Amino acid sequence: MSKKVVLAFSGGLDTTYCAIYLREELGLEVHSAIVNTGGFSAEELKHTEERAYMLGAKSHTTLDKVQHYYQDCVRYLIYGNILKNNTYPLSVSAERAFQAVAIAQYAKEIGAESIAHGSTAAGNDQVLFYLAFDIMAPGVKVITPIRDQKLSREAEVEYLKAHGVDLAWEKAQYSINKGLWGTSVGGKETLNSWDYLPEEAYPTQLSKKEDAIHTLHFEKGELKGIDGKMFEKAVDAIQQLEEMAQPYGVGRDTHVGDTIIGIKGRVGFEAAAPLIIIKAHHLLEKHVLTKWQQYWKEQLANWYGMLLHEGQFLEPVMRNIEVFLEDTQERVTGKVQLRLQPYRFEILGIESEYDMMSAKFGTYGEMNREWSGEDVKGFTKILGISSKLHAMLEKS
Amino acid sequence: MSKKVVLAFSGGLDTTYCAIYLREELGLEVHSAIVNTGGFSAEELKHTEERAYMLGAKSHTTLDKVQHYYQDCVRYLIYGNILKNNTYPLSVSAERAFQAVAIAQYAKEIGAESIAHGSTAAGNDQVLFYLAFDIMAPGVKVITPIRDQKLSREAEVEYLKAHGVDLAWEKAQYSINKGLWGTSVGGKETLNSWDYLPEEAYPTQLSKKEDAIHTLHFEKGELKGIDGKMFEKAVDAIQQLEEMAQPYGVGRDTHVGDTIIGIKGRVGFEAAAPLIIIKAHHLLEKHVLTKWQQYWKEQLANWYGMLLHEGQFLEPVMRNIEVFLEDTQERVTGKVQLRLQPYRFEILGIESEYDMMSAKFGTYGEMNREWSGEDVKGFTKILGISSKLHAMLEKS
Amino acid sequence: MSKKVVLAFSGGLDTTYCAIYLREELGLEVHSAIVNTGGFSAEELKHTEERAYMLGAKSHTTLDKVQHYYQDCVRYLIYGNILKNNTYPLSVSAERAFQAVAIAQYAKEIGAESIAHGSTAAGNDQVLFYLAFDIMAPGVKVITPIRDQKLSREAEVEYLKAHGVDLAWEKAQYSINKGLWGTSVGGKETLNSWDYLPEEAYPTQLSKKEDAIHTLHFEKGELKGIDGKMFEKAVDAIQQLEEMAQPYGVGRDTHVGDTIIGIKGRVGFEAAAPLIIIKAHHLLEKHVLTKWQQYWKEQLANWYGMLLHEGQFLEPVMRNIEVFLEDTQERVTGKVQLRLQPYRFEILGIESEYDMMSAKFGTYGEMNREWSGEDVKGFTKILGISSKLHAMLEKS
Amino acid sequence: MSKKVVLAFSGGLDTTYCAIYLREELGLEVHSAIVNTGGFSAEELKHTEERAYMLGAKSHTTLDKVQHYYQDCVRYLIYGNILKNNTYPLSVSAERAFQAVAIAQYAKEIGAESIAHGSTAAGNDQVLFYLAFDIMAPGVKVITPIRDQKLSREAEVEYLKAHGVDLAWEKAQYSINKGLWGTSVGGKETLNSWDYLPEEAYPTQLSKKEDAIHTLHFEKGELKGIDGKMFEKAVDAIQQLEEMAQPYGVGRDTHVGDTIIGIKGRVGFEAAAPLIIIKAHHLLEKHVLTKWQQYWKEQLANWYGMLLHEGQFLEPVMRNIEVFLEDTQERVTGKVQLRLQPYRFEILGIESEYDMMSAKFGTYGEMNREWSGEDVKGFTKILGISSKLHAMLEKS
Repeated sequence: MSKKVVLAFSGGLDTTYCAIYLREELGLEVHSAIVNTGGFSAEELKHTEERAYMLGAKSHTTLDKVQHYYQDCVRYLIYGNILKNNTYPLSVSAERAFQAVAIAQYAKEIGAESIAHGSTAAGNDQVLFYLAFDIMAPGVKVITPIRDQKLSREAEVEYLKAHGVDLAWEKAQYSINKGLWGTSVGGKETLNSWDYLPEEAYPTQLSKKEDAIHTLHFEKGELKGIDGKMFEKAVDAIQQLEEMAQPYGVGRDTHVGDTIIGIKGRVGFEAAAPLIIIKAHHLLEKHVLTKWQQYWKEQLANWYGMLLHEGQFLEPVMRNIEVFLEDTQERVTGKVQLRLQPYRFEILGIESEYDMMSAKFGTYGEMNREWSGEDVKGFTKILGISSKLHAMLEKS
Repeated sequence: MSKKVVLAFSGGLDTTYCAIYLREELGLEVHSAIVNTGGFSAEELKHTEERAYMLGAKSHTTLDKVQHYYQDCVRYLIYGNILKNNTYPLSVSAERAFQAVAIAQYAKEIGAESIAHGSTAAGNDQVLFYLAFDIMAPGVKVITPIRDQKLSREAEVEYLKAHGVDLAWEKAQYSINKGLWGTSVGGKETLNSWDYLPEEAYPTQLSKKEDAIHTLHFEKGELKGIDGKMFEKAVDAIQQLEEMAQPYGVGRDTHVGDTIIGIKGRVGFEAAAPLIIIKAHHLLEKHVLTKWQQYWKEQLANWYGMLLHEGQFLEPVMRNIEVFLEDTQERVTGKVQLRLQPYRFEILGIESEYDMMSAKFGTYGEMNREWSGEDVKGFTKILGISSKLHAMLEKS
Repeated sequence: MSKKVVLAFSGGLDTTYCAIYLREELGLEVHSAIVNTGGFSAEELKHTEERAYMLGAKSHTTLDKVQHYYQDCVRYLIYGNILKNNTYPLSVSAERAFQAVAIAQYAKEIGAESIAHGSTAAGNDQVLFYLAFDIMAPGVKVITPIRDQKLSREAEVEYLKAHGVDLAWEKAQYSINKGLWGTSVGGKETLNSWDYLPEEAYPTQLSKKEDAIHTLHFEKGELKGIDGKMFEKAVDAIQQLEEMAQPYGVGRDTHVGDTIIGIKGRVGFEAAAPLIIIKAHHLLEKHVLTKWQQYWKEQLANWYGMLLHEGQFLEPVMRNIEVFLEDTQERVTGKVQLRLQPYRFEILGIESEYDMMSAKFGTYGEMNREWSGEDVKGFTKILGISSKLHAMLEKS
Repeated sequence: MSKKVVLAFSGGLDTTYCAIYLREELGLEVHSAIVNTGGFSAEELKHTEERAYMLGAKSHTTLDKVQHYYQDCVRYLIYGNILKNNTYPLSVSAERAFQAVAIAQYAKEIGAESIAHGSTAAGNDQVLFYLAFDIMAPGVKVITPIRDQKLSREAEVEYLKAHGVDLAWEKAQYSINKGLWGTSVGGKETLNSWDYLPEEAYPTQLSKKEDAIHTLHFEKGELKGIDGKMFEKAVDAIQQLEEMAQPYGVGRDTHVGDTIIGIKGRVGFEAAAPLIIIKAHHLLEKHVLTKWQQYWKEQLANWYGMLLHEGQFLEPVMRNIEVFLEDTQERVTGKVQLRLQPYRFEILGIESEYDMMSAKFGTYGEMNREWSGEDVKGFTKILGISSKLHAMLEKS
């Protein structure tokens, strides 16, 4: 009688190895699953399914989690204008954390006794996956064959051949990871600190060159429309924006940061929609939130991004921060206009019924009826008292 | 016998009015002064001096403070990667705060009994000036004729004519303020939230179009060289970079933020060298500082920027923060390469003897001899304990 | 035809003066109001009402706001363990801010055209009152006779006599302010930095000396029972605890801090129930919240306390912080035992179904089945990587 | 030819086992060392040395590090008023981190190839020691016999007997750790959340009952005198204060917090001098520092305490924070008076030439010549603008 294992399966070399290994060596009943968070086409998913069955999986499931991913994670990244190290929209780490949660839930649903994943010893994934599994499915055993057997690519290919799986496994020059919230591009140049990715490394090439001006519609912090067309689901608006902006080659950059493990990592990415949305959303907030709302949003959001990046999506404070962030979005409603050009975009201006810069209050640099020069004089005098007292005590 | 007043004098309509008013109406001996923090050419300064004497100033002085400004203020903005609201290098507010300090010192030196400035009731300047004067020269009287008399431009022009000063005072479409750390451009479009400055509003027009790659040399956080040429003084390197980058039209953006007075303000700026330096410096830091050094630098630096922006340059905590920021720069030494293109620049990569991503420690994504998969497994298990305990107490 | 003014009326000398002044000099129809936030007995309130009518008030109202005060303000001070400068439970400032809000609401309800209060130029009250009035009732005029006329006590007494109000106004040695959340005691010794309040300055004298052990019951962060007796309303539990603990003379201290105006202030207080509740609540949280929940709670709560203290109760970020704090209280349920002794109390221990120190997870200092020494070794190795890399780059 | 191992040696059962094991089983040359950070008497140190030689150590060294410990660590705990979780002066964790550093330095000095310590798998020590060794002496091997062999007390005793070491090893009811910065008391009651340590568990018993008033003299943040008697070294002042205050049984409490490993821990402590010094120092700072200096000191100091507690004393940001904290102490000079009573102390008042509450500036609650009611009115109006604008946009 065989035991159930859920295998987080992408169809790549590592998880293909796992599929055979789990059945052949450990005698387990393999239930493969792939979590779609917006990075896979229907064809890719079908292909993955076929491969799973070809490899002898007892069952294969596609967990379609795009809406959940947006609802439970991406929208908080938008509310918080989260760019790790002021650059990176957390394209991969957010997704991976969320996928791990989906796999753990699935394993509990089907009563699996173990979960396997294809992570190596080298990156963040092993941590992200294990944390979610251990917290959400405490009794379940976690199997990490590639890491624990320290397997080389050659050894994996060899093993597969020996078990009748003879596929063409070419190592791509760049490792690419695509999802709703951006695509990462790593390899070659990003392995050192000086070189930079060449144009051709990016999956999306420049194909549009005419300047264009567009308008985004936000409702309580969420992107709900583009150029007057409203969407029921924010995910659809995001994907529409991505299609519109991607051909300009915008939203590219290189992220350098601290990995969970403590070493520095460097990775390129392209994330047209995420970057445009965050910058547009941020500008809107500058107009409708007070200074201290912005200050504390930034503190909490940066922390949220850091913990998410480090696999701590399930740390309880994350839920508290989400509640805070959502509460700040009450007035983040309005239009933002932007310009697209090859390799760059500009956020131009906003319009909102909650705009605190609205002309009715008087304009900065112009005379104002709410207060007088005399008021400002009094304000300034009082504002300086503490520093003045301090200065008066200076030893001569 | 007349009493000494120091007049912060720019030669514009407001301070020209003050020069006459102080002498004619208040019977004071006017000692005009202009603080150069990098925004004025020798000709402009000469012109201002001539005007001062033409208006009957008893003395006129140019306080050349570019080096002091860099040493006491700008370098901390670089150490801290300070961009107000993630956008604005504080071009004007930093400069104004520093000019106010220089004027206060000068007034004390020559034993003036009062200081006058041309601020109106409408902006931050009235606060920035008064705070510095009140804290540094507590006994000295501050005179703010334009604000306190609520004068219109017309009234000023009329008064000057009546006193024999008949000059052409045309109101520029945009109010422009130039200094070492950037040029602000306000007016018309920036007075509402939606419109954006047209190309022609910017003082510097695009005049260079060929892609170019350059290298910046940092030493302990300071820009000390460009493309192999080293400078004794960082100010010279900054000005050289500005000359090199400005013709590409880079470093432009629009700042929206909270003024000292509590209303929202919006202003355009161009600041090629400041933005390039900050972004390059920041990337270098991502490679040579630890995660927590970066975290706390950001906290303190943002606060520093906020207080500076709000005229609190003399608040004692600013000195403590400066000491902290300087202490973090010990290893911020190395080269940064960047690319210039019309309207955009890219920071491409770095090289530093302190680079923590250096290959000798193993590369992210590759196997490593400092630790094993087993170590990461233990790490992850322990890392998740707290969230796991929390989850186990969840009520079913 | 006379115009309505709402007068925040306590019945003291200053507001008595105002009552006459507003009617006699300004010809207004005086509607006096007193906000009870837990500091007044029924007799005191009756006495105040009689005085109001004696002074010719058109109407007098007691706004009984104890429950609202708890619901909208005090419970957040508990959730946040808020002690200003690590000492002071904000007894007076919280109350004053809340009273100002209640007066503003009342003025709007009865359609008053102005609001008057008896603040002097010397303290925080003038700021707290004005801020609430100006924000909540923007069109309404604020009248501050004592401050604006710079009246001395003698002048007020004289004026009142001249208008037929001849009462005995003796200046108390200490200014005392009593409310639900503590009693402040200022004057004489607190006016300098060295002296301390004598025993007899405190309103409540030591009258109980036997050691006693008690148990507090918290539910989602709120005090809901004492020694097994449960209360429907937290306010009743607080008042019961105050009665029980006060005779021990506990909860006394002296607060030194920065006033809104920028100078330092010093004030004594006794706040038995507030201090016991906060310390007990805090200990319970140490057992049921994670490290990062505690960390961020502290950040936000301290900020909340600071803004509240400075009259910024209506700043929008306060609402966002309240939502965060409430969300963290989900598991702050359990019992806390404490000991009362003359002049001191000790929080002894807690019991909670959410206690993360519960024996089932293994005890600190004892062997554990959730992880091994090997796991900790791996954890430690990875934990040190960043500092180790940094150290390896040290120049020799 | 045998290889050198440095053994961190206390003379207790665990390290006695290590001494024999390292020589007999691993064939190493044992160089035992004990770091004195203020917790050992000369007799105890002599006794430990004798035992080391009795066990066959090749050499034994007492590293007297009290002054270094104060200079490199304790004074920052004072500057920062550091109490972990608002309670615990970090008595043990600070010391342990510092001892680990001293052992690592010693191992490098004598060219040892390995370091051994007696930590078990159960506590923080294994992490604190390993981190310091790994960072400071990267090539050196770390040996942790008790943890790695999962030895029980009985097995250790048996092994020692078999090797001719037959000593009386009685397990104390409480585990006690004494040092310059306090004494921890753990065991029995602290192993659960509800019970509390009985009077007799504390090493120091109440032996003085008369009220006494004393004065502490601080110079730039350091305790330099008591009751008029000045000390050259702060360590001597601390020890003198401890002697004076300890007999009152003050400074006792129970710390509940998160261990490095993620579980909750609970421990009692007595730390008379540390708590008095921190509270007195803090009060002095409230008088001489500005609000924002205090704010940022608290942020950085709490972080410093957290990292120190978690064995991250060598994380580079710690050095940056130390520089900040020291810089804030420039004016923390003056006298603080306090009262000692059985089981409690009160900080009563301060006197300092830098006291910002000094009468010359006017007193809170009294009229003032530096500003007028009119100034405060202007101040308040401007202060409220942002919240007012926000409120005006409220949807009706």
